[in-house]
Amino acid sequence: MINVTVWNENQHEKTDERVRSVHPNGLHETLAAILRPEKDMNVRTATLDMPECGLTEDVLSSTDVLFWWGHIAHRQVPDEVVTRVQKAVLSGMGLVVLHSGHESKIFQRLMGTSCGLRWHELGEKERIFNIAPSHPVMQGIPPYFMLEAEEMYGERFDIPDPEKLLGLCWYPSGEVFRGICEFDRGLGRIIYVQPGHETLRSYENEYIRRILINAARYAARPQALQDTRVGSAFAEPLEKI
Amino acid sequence: MINVTVWNENQHEKTDERVRSVHPNGLHETLAAILRPEKDMNVRTATLDMPECGLTEDVLSSTDVLFWWGHIAHRQVPDEVVTRVQKAVLSGMGLVVLHSGHESKIFQRLMGTSCGLRWHELGEKERIFNIAPSHPVMQGIPPYFMLEAEEMYGERFDIPDPEKLLGLCWYPSGEVFRGICEFDRGLGRIIYVQPGHETLRSYENEYIRRILINAARYAARPQALQDTRVGSAFAEPLEKI
Amino acid sequence: MINVTVWNENQHEKTDERVRSVHPNGLHETLAAILRPEKDMNVRTATLDMPECGLTEDVLSSTDVLFWWGHIAHRQVPDEVVTRVQKAVLSGMGLVVLHSGHESKIFQRLMGTSCGLRWHELGEKERIFNIAPSHPVMQGIPPYFMLEAEEMYGERFDIPDPEKLLGLCWYPSGEVFRGICEFDRGLGRIIYVQPGHETLRSYENEYIRRILINAARYAARPQALQDTRVGSAFAEPLEKI
Amino acid sequence: MINVTVWNENQHEKTDERVRSVHPNGLHETLAAILRPEKDMNVRTATLDMPECGLTEDVLSSTDVLFWWGHIAHRQVPDEVVTRVQKAVLSGMGLVVLHSGHESKIFQRLMGTSCGLRWHELGEKERIFNIAPSHPVMQGIPPYFMLEAEEMYGERFDIPDPEKLLGLCWYPSGEVFRGICEFDRGLGRIIYVQPGHETLRSYENEYIRRILINAARYAARPQALQDTRVGSAFAEPLEKI
Repeated sequence: MINVTVWNENQHEKTDERVRSVHPNGLHETLAAILRPEKDMNVRTATLDMPECGLTEDVLSSTDVLFWWGHIAHRQVPDEVVTRVQKAVLSGMGLVVLHSGHESKIFQRLMGTSCGLRWHELGEKERIFNIAPSHPVMQGIPPYFMLEAEEMYGERFDIPDPEKLLGLCWYPSGEVFRGICEFDRGLGRIIYVQPGHETLRSYENEYIRRILINAARYAARPQALQDTRVGSAFAEPLEKI
Repeated sequence: MINVTVWNENQHEKTDERVRSVHPNGLHETLAAILRPEKDMNVRTATLDMPECGLTEDVLSSTDVLFWWGHIAHRQVPDEVVTRVQKAVLSGMGLVVLHSGHESKIFQRLMGTSCGLRWHELGEKERIFNIAPSHPVMQGIPPYFMLEAEEMYGERFDIPDPEKLLGLCWYPSGEVFRGICEFDRGLGRIIYVQPGHETLRSYENEYIRRILINAARYAARPQALQDTRVGSAFAEPLEKI
Repeated sequence: MINVTVWNENQHEKTDERVRSVHPNGLHETLAAILRPEKDMNVRTATLDMPECGLTEDVLSSTDVLFWWGHIAHRQVPDEVVTRVQKAVLSGMGLVVLHSGHESKIFQRLMGTSCGLRWHELGEKERIFNIAPSHPVMQGIPPYFMLEAEEMYGERFDIPDPEKLLGLCWYPSGEVFRGICEFDRGLGRIIYVQPGHETLRSYENEYIRRILINAARYAARPQALQDTRVGSAFAEPLEKI
Repeated sequence: MINVTVWNENQHEKTDERVRSVHPNGLHETLAAILRPEKDMNVRTATLDMPECGLTEDVLSSTDVLFWWGHIAHRQVPDEVVTRVQKAVLSGMGLVVLHSGHESKIFQRLMGTSCGLRWHELGEKERIFNIAPSHPVMQGIPPYFMLEAEEMYGERFDIPDPEKLLGLCWYPSGEVFRGICEFDRGLGRIIYVQPGHETLRSYENEYIRRILINAARYAARPQALQDTRVGSAFAEPLEKI
């Protein structure tokens, strides 16, 4: 079984009726509902309001892949929680960062860059091109597909070169974006997925749902890791010199 | 002219006679002396003991490439200095990280990983293979060359995949290491160079000297950057929709 | 089920008693015997002497991953067979290239480089470091392990930068090698694995066996490819302009 | 001095008045005229009609960087000429492949893939985003710029992952393209640049001109190569075993 934890800051939901109408049980439940039908997945949720943001050592050590949705409350996640999640990723836990999570502390921490981009919100459509059709995350995804409405995220996206560029986004307002990417850090795999604005319905799109399910399986902690060292270690000589 | 700043924690030099004998004016002066004869370089130094570690906004904004040697005092570099250096790199300043700088706060910050490795110090020799002979940093470097004595740094080196792997190291004690690497972060280029243990004389080796000179030129802030944005920005639509 | 085809030039076996003693049924059968016990694999073999080298359109279209062992007879594989295999890889068939297959026509064709290296054969030992412990091909592999005797392959290995560097090799004669690598070409995945000299017993090593089994699963043609276009195509406009 | 050779198939120019009106002396002279004013460049041209396509051993060994424009006559370039150019690139000569050169034999040979793409020709505009502002090829290029009219080349572009993705293209017809890329093969650097349809005027654009000039300097054969081996070589042991 793959143990999935879906984290959501769960702030827009408290104040914005439009968000509540799209995500009546919160974005975390919208996301969890996509993954729960998968027979190989155990899905739970965690939010900012919980003690330690719901991301205790116990939760992280029993999580194979963590989904992350955040936006207006990035700065409210304590640094010690970010450090704990970073260490979990470096030890092999997967991380799927969604939409505005591009500027979350944890994504910035793992990337080492600002993760900034250019943006506007006009409800325009978005077309996503499948650049890596044989990659596990892109299985079952056609050469391109359309979302009816999304927030525009445009280049330059201030990320390190991805280990694998999976999807490229086109917007009618004249922009492009490296919207689906794999990054490898330590023993963990990180997938960034652009769609997911809080007032829109991209998570109802069948291909986005497929990408999230694929990402959960692909990024999940490998079962046969022989060594999860994080940090340096003295080494006895392997050969006599 | 390329403005080079060589930073050294300058701690071993205060307490260890062996280090003083190899680096009578400090490791920063050993390194600066390699670069000063280059007619296109202005070289200055900075150390941990200086106010703000000698790395004020003024110094960084007038630095094209920063060399970094640190070891036992990594934790003494204040986080705000690290943040300042990180922002300078993302804005285009180059960074050359030397030897034990692999666990400096600034390198960890930019990599997002622990940057840990396996190590021992037996004074054994080290052979470096030139994996990328046409890369600017490896110009003038033979297919392989030998250092008489170095500290062993061995794999797995917990770094993200380098944007370019430049040199591989062999040690008689049975180890290998990705010892010369390029990383690109934001608008800045980062070169890591393994040799440089404080009691040894690798900086007298002609090829290591050549690599450091090449790295200074290659990583130096480009002169024709059109945009040095760090972080996100609202974007007016480029097309009518 | 994963349909595996193991290809072997099967030449040394005819003339060299030492090779026959290690591989009594040919190298192809040695390799096939590693994979056959896997319940999700259908394994067959093909050799140079068969019509069309045993690699007809029918065989390739029903192969999910092709293993390749060749050495002295690289030039005897007809160009049209090489072209056929290349097209199969670009359409999604996996390819696992073994040892001296580094200079096979098909590997050179897919890499675009000479794939040359430096070599000698002294029966020395070889240590392989696991650089990517969370990669599917390296599951179950310890941080490093030893082969009792192998042919030395050393750098510079004239390959394009691998999409993922998986294993690094150390030899007592003073050399290093990027010995386990992933390359992605078209829709196909290519894994190169250094060990496998014809007179030696590396294929009896449990970790090499594990790597070959893992590679078969990882490189196998994905089941949910939506588009296997090879070459260019006219595109009707997706938007009115 | 950088020795530049501009190669053009020079076929459209013979039969198509529109092409002659845009390139009165042939596309090779249009391109050469961009580079000739640079004081560090010696520029000559070669075309398909010349003996050995104008690409003799003498020409190639005295060329530091080769520009390539071809389209309808790709199949007329003899394989032995392609092999000669490939070997020159692997030995350190740079190659700048323009527009429809994506399906030239030499580009396919060096990439190992079909280099296919999706296309149409509607005279629509094209916007190019600078993804790597600090890369030498992108010096002086703004965050994005517009071409008035180009042929559309769209994804999936069947290339190996570029060593560096430099520019992304947006088209109003709903497409995106990885239009400026660096590939490293052997000791040579290869830059692909999308614009340059034969009936259009992209080579009059100041930023495209700047990119071509930058590419000539960046891809030019390095002056300090220590070893230009192509292929394998026996290696005497570096250490006693």
